[in-house]
Amino acid sequence: MVSVINFSVGKELLIGRTMNTNAHWIGGRLYKMGGMLDRVLTVTDSLEEISAGLKELLALRPDFIIVVGGLGPTPDDMTLKGIALGLERKIKFNEDAIALIKEHIEKVGREFELTPARRKMAMIPEGAVPLRNDVGTAPGVRLTAGKGTVVYCLPGVPSEMRNIFSNFTEKEIRGRLGEMHIAKVTMKLSRIYESALAPSIGEALKMHPEAYIKSHPRGLKSGVPTMELDVTVTSRESGTARSTYSELVSFLSRRISKLGGTITSKREAMK
Amino acid sequence: MVSVINFSVGKELLIGRTMNTNAHWIGGRLYKMGGMLDRVLTVTDSLEEISAGLKELLALRPDFIIVVGGLGPTPDDMTLKGIALGLERKIKFNEDAIALIKEHIEKVGREFELTPARRKMAMIPEGAVPLRNDVGTAPGVRLTAGKGTVVYCLPGVPSEMRNIFSNFTEKEIRGRLGEMHIAKVTMKLSRIYESALAPSIGEALKMHPEAYIKSHPRGLKSGVPTMELDVTVTSRESGTARSTYSELVSFLSRRISKLGGTITSKREAMK
Repeated sequence: MVSVINFSVGKELLIGRTMNTNAHWIGGRLYKMGGMLDRVLTVTDSLEEISAGLKELLALRPDFIIVVGGLGPTPDDMTLKGIALGLERKIKFNEDAIALIKEHIEKVGREFELTPARRKMAMIPEGAVPLRNDVGTAPGVRLTAGKGTVVYCLPGVPSEMRNIFSNFTEKEIRGRLGEMHIAKVTMKLSRIYESALAPSIGEALKMHPEAYIKSHPRGLKSGVPTMELDVTVTSRESGTARSTYSELVSFLSRRISKLGGTITSKREAMK
Repeated sequence: MVSVINFSVGKELLIGRTMNTNAHWIGGRLYKMGGMLDRVLTVTDSLEEISAGLKELLALRPDFIIVVGGLGPTPDDMTLKGIALGLERKIKFNEDAIALIKEHIEKVGREFELTPARRKMAMIPEGAVPLRNDVGTAPGVRLTAGKGTVVYCLPGVPSEMRNIFSNFTEKEIRGRLGEMHIAKVTMKLSRIYESALAPSIGEALKMHPEAYIKSHPRGLKSGVPTMELDVTVTSRESGTARSTYSELVSFLSRRISKLGGTITSKREAMK
């Protein structure tokens, strides 16, 4: 298994200003590849919080830490400085980074001058490599730290994060994961309470502890209880994923019907 | 200052299934009271992850940890067991908890039986107090741990989390914070790049490091750069909050205009 952590930086995420859609998007992308986000840690824009958070996460020895936010030109964009502090490295003006910034500025038809704001975005930790941002100014950053953890630093603007993630981070993680097969379904259920189905979910998980089976109660609709039920099986073997999946879905379907419930819809996906 | 951490539990939050709207909502509520969420940590439904995460967070000695998710009847709802494990306490069947569950079941017109699923929801860590849930079955939980940290455990269903948070958690935190005054504005700007405004934000923050000043670039609109700028000042003194706020807003407005930018709208709030 490949372990991946998201480290989100930004006060706006902690004060109800901005929803952490980036962590949600990254989690979904990894899960679709057959991987998974192990943790999300969100801290404010402060050198102490960023460096302390990084050290705590490195101590868990993950394969990847994906840091998001705080690469821009404003004074509260201090992620790279905080990361460098946590790693006891210097931040240095990087020629490749400024070349990427210059290229972007000229691409959008503006004249390049080495302003302090642009200079700041080219200051990256020693040993780090800047990553091209096709849709914004601040480059991403890749470095290795601790016991072989790969650290990616991506901008917080969602379009920029997604661009660099797709072009660099995802490719590297996918290479590490190898090909994974996924079989999954979301079933909508009616006329059954979560508490009534709970023991059957427990039995199913005893049969296949590696599966992900999760009920989401959706409240009463016209006095009738409703719920969604997710079943996901991931495996390196396509045959294993499908046979485990079929076994679980038919077991749960029998139980739902026996308990008086109805499956009102099914959305399946195989990969 | 009162330090508060959100500890979110649930695999659905890590795989792109469910957006962590609860952390966002709690962060916003605290900030409106004049407090702030210091961190959000999200982990999956696993006894090891929950107990290890709790221990890490307690080591930071926050005033409050608000645990959200995993109190329901299904086998992957293991938050209270994980919390108890982290605290080296037992979980025990709690008479007050089962009374609250019974009351809720009867309120929604169903007959109460002590099923294993309901019994599970009444198993809470030793020394914990169950909290009434007006809109769902699983009670919340309050306990104290570590060096005087108050730990709240709330259900992950948003309506239930909000109900217990408002009736219990918020009241206690508000009492600890005392009355706070807030003056804030969100300005929409046009014709100015974030990198051009960055040095002025830096100067403003040197004048008042206690203020929160944050630019959010909103991209080009008809070829013209746009951005939002937040200025928030929090103080125990109503006069201080307002005078610092006025000083910062007039300083920044002058700079924006000098740099060729326009303020296209302003949304102010005072409390």
